[in-house]
Amino acid sequence: MAKINSNYQKLQAGYLFPEIGKRVRAFSEKHPSAKVIRLGIGDVVLPLPAPIVDALKAGADELGKRESFRGYGPEQGYDFLLEAVAAHYASQGAKVAADEVFVSDGSKCDTSNIQEIFGLDNVVAVTDPVYPVYVDTSVMGGRTGVADASGRFPGLVYLPCTADNGFDPHLPPLPVDLIYLCSPNNPTGAVMSRASLQKWIDYARAHEAIILFDAAYEAFIREPGLPHSIYELPGARECAVEFRSFSKTAGFTGTRCATTVVPKELAARNDKGEKVALHGLWNRRQTTKFNGVSYPIQRAAAAVFSPTGRKAVDANIAYYMQNADIIRAGLEKAGFSVYGGTNAPYIWIKVPAGLTSWQFFDKLLGECHVVGTPGSGFGSCGEGYFRLSAFGLRENVEEAVARIGRGRA
Amino acid sequence: MAKINSNYQKLQAGYLFPEIGKRVRAFSEKHPSAKVIRLGIGDVVLPLPAPIVDALKAGADELGKRESFRGYGPEQGYDFLLEAVAAHYASQGAKVAADEVFVSDGSKCDTSNIQEIFGLDNVVAVTDPVYPVYVDTSVMGGRTGVADASGRFPGLVYLPCTADNGFDPHLPPLPVDLIYLCSPNNPTGAVMSRASLQKWIDYARAHEAIILFDAAYEAFIREPGLPHSIYELPGARECAVEFRSFSKTAGFTGTRCATTVVPKELAARNDKGEKVALHGLWNRRQTTKFNGVSYPIQRAAAAVFSPTGRKAVDANIAYYMQNADIIRAGLEKAGFSVYGGTNAPYIWIKVPAGLTSWQFFDKLLGECHVVGTPGSGFGSCGEGYFRLSAFGLRENVEEAVARIGRGRA
Repeated sequence: MAKINSNYQKLQAGYLFPEIGKRVRAFSEKHPSAKVIRLGIGDVVLPLPAPIVDALKAGADELGKRESFRGYGPEQGYDFLLEAVAAHYASQGAKVAADEVFVSDGSKCDTSNIQEIFGLDNVVAVTDPVYPVYVDTSVMGGRTGVADASGRFPGLVYLPCTADNGFDPHLPPLPVDLIYLCSPNNPTGAVMSRASLQKWIDYARAHEAIILFDAAYEAFIREPGLPHSIYELPGARECAVEFRSFSKTAGFTGTRCATTVVPKELAARNDKGEKVALHGLWNRRQTTKFNGVSYPIQRAAAAVFSPTGRKAVDANIAYYMQNADIIRAGLEKAGFSVYGGTNAPYIWIKVPAGLTSWQFFDKLLGECHVVGTPGSGFGSCGEGYFRLSAFGLRENVEEAVARIGRGRA
Repeated sequence: MAKINSNYQKLQAGYLFPEIGKRVRAFSEKHPSAKVIRLGIGDVVLPLPAPIVDALKAGADELGKRESFRGYGPEQGYDFLLEAVAAHYASQGAKVAADEVFVSDGSKCDTSNIQEIFGLDNVVAVTDPVYPVYVDTSVMGGRTGVADASGRFPGLVYLPCTADNGFDPHLPPLPVDLIYLCSPNNPTGAVMSRASLQKWIDYARAHEAIILFDAAYEAFIREPGLPHSIYELPGARECAVEFRSFSKTAGFTGTRCATTVVPKELAARNDKGEKVALHGLWNRRQTTKFNGVSYPIQRAAAAVFSPTGRKAVDANIAYYMQNADIIRAGLEKAGFSVYGGTNAPYIWIKVPAGLTSWQFFDKLLGECHVVGTPGSGFGSCGEGYFRLSAFGLRENVEEAVARIGRGRA
């Protein structure tokens, strides 16, 4: 008799974004003429730049000719892309070798799948609020108990990030083994300073913990001096895996490509207490359960690092960050306390006193026809906050801000 | 202190294909002028047909224009592809709804990942010989003990497939819960008859077991009356998941696309003994840990079902199956016992008496400069057998067969 993985039944029924979709559909059916502006889900809107499209098409053409056809590629990714990624890291002052880079079809997959190479007897720490995937996949993997009334799962260690601590997590109150950190942060838009990140590296090294560092939004950092990669800091190669994505950086949410770095120095203990290199384990995981990213897509990703590709991608990022400036300025003018949005494409606002995050969601949708994301959807410490995304067309962002300013659509 | 998943250390050090690569490299270094012909790994060689390349490029162009840009798509796949897949199933006499189809980047991923929705307290059955991924991912997932001297893992139930039973597995000697079946089979090239497959469906329904049916090679079936899909048979929708791939069918090994069908009727028990639909669990797994297949790749996959795409893909399959005919005939003439290769792109031969599979590998490489795959790499019942792949260019296949016929390069 086949048995399901009953851990799935611990998951909360309504995942955040489907619930938002449901409420927006219900509103639109009731008010078919309302022009709803969506600043909720963090999806890009600008088209792929021409150098990237051209590379993708050239890759497709290669597959169409016998002399340049390619079948199975290296599961880790083609050298041309691995080397471009390593060179980009070097340009940011981070030491990463090409054979420490693993190309995949998305950071969502990698930040989840990385758990597989770690035993179930690790204590996982996550920030609160947090990108829900880290939590849900921990639950699905059998790393937690059943959620309490606040939605927190026993077995996970939650690190509060609120205005009180500047959205910068304190070290954990009890020892943890795996630590998800995301900077620039989704959802709060906060960026960890060098000092703050160094504190975590020192903690991880002292406790033999591993930091799972999600740098999907590093390209949105504008202020100099803030770390783009954890490997800019001393000691990180001994304690951190880093995830990056082409999704937001280069408009690849529908094109799919990401990279994960596992430094050769990185190790954890086996059940005999011996140190085992994580690079070999991740390589085994990827070669056994994954077959590499589509060749034309890898060509497209490599074009992001070409001079023309870089320029076009930077222009798109600047566009989104101008959106962020408009949202920040407009919301501040409207009297909101506003966080993030300076070095991240997310603006995190305090909802007016007396309202929950979901009540504010309904109010904003009902009165201004603007869709955002309730902070409580990211964790109990997100209650009382609200996320707006800078990934919109300029005219929509301006219109949304104007509506919020005047309190109606 | 971070701990690894120690199950990884149960895996055998040398995975089959890396070991083959090592021996071929060593041979080529010693004999640099030898022209080695590779009929080992099952990788396609013919280029992508023009209608498929054109669709891929058109998809890329859409992403390059603001009005047709697409970001995140449905994790399950776009309707245009889901509907094309469902229609193709219907044309084969199998009832599959579009919303039961999940598009992914490969069957290797899906046949592995599907284990996640099942508890660790299921007994997994695999054939012997077997596609190594089913076994290795069971080990990595913690479903087995440590391998014995023959390489078998306690906890798995092995179903021998040898010439003695016509490579058609008998029902298991003890109850099993999850059953991997692959037809047409990799590596033996055997195809399950309707009667044989029905026997497994009846077993699964009687025991509430789930069949994980890998139909990656169904397009290579030439004889009428053999089942292409398990859903052609009564009762299969209540007990089977089916995996298909564009890899071998349409030359997508480097392009990456596959489909998995989870019928709505399919269920397994939770830890309270209640039936839970697997469709919802797989949907939750895919939406949480996966972000869908690249849009242009989905466009390319849909083109496989267009009239011109279908025609081109069928021509490529016919080309490979003519290779299979050449290999079968040539090897039989050379005195070998030959199996498979009639409805599958793999030819499974009995190695000459007195030689192990690896000894025959070395002999064939050393004397004929031809690379195949030792049967023992697929399991202990593969010992004494050898796999040749029909995925080669015609001139290479003919040359390889001629060399084997005369016993030297």
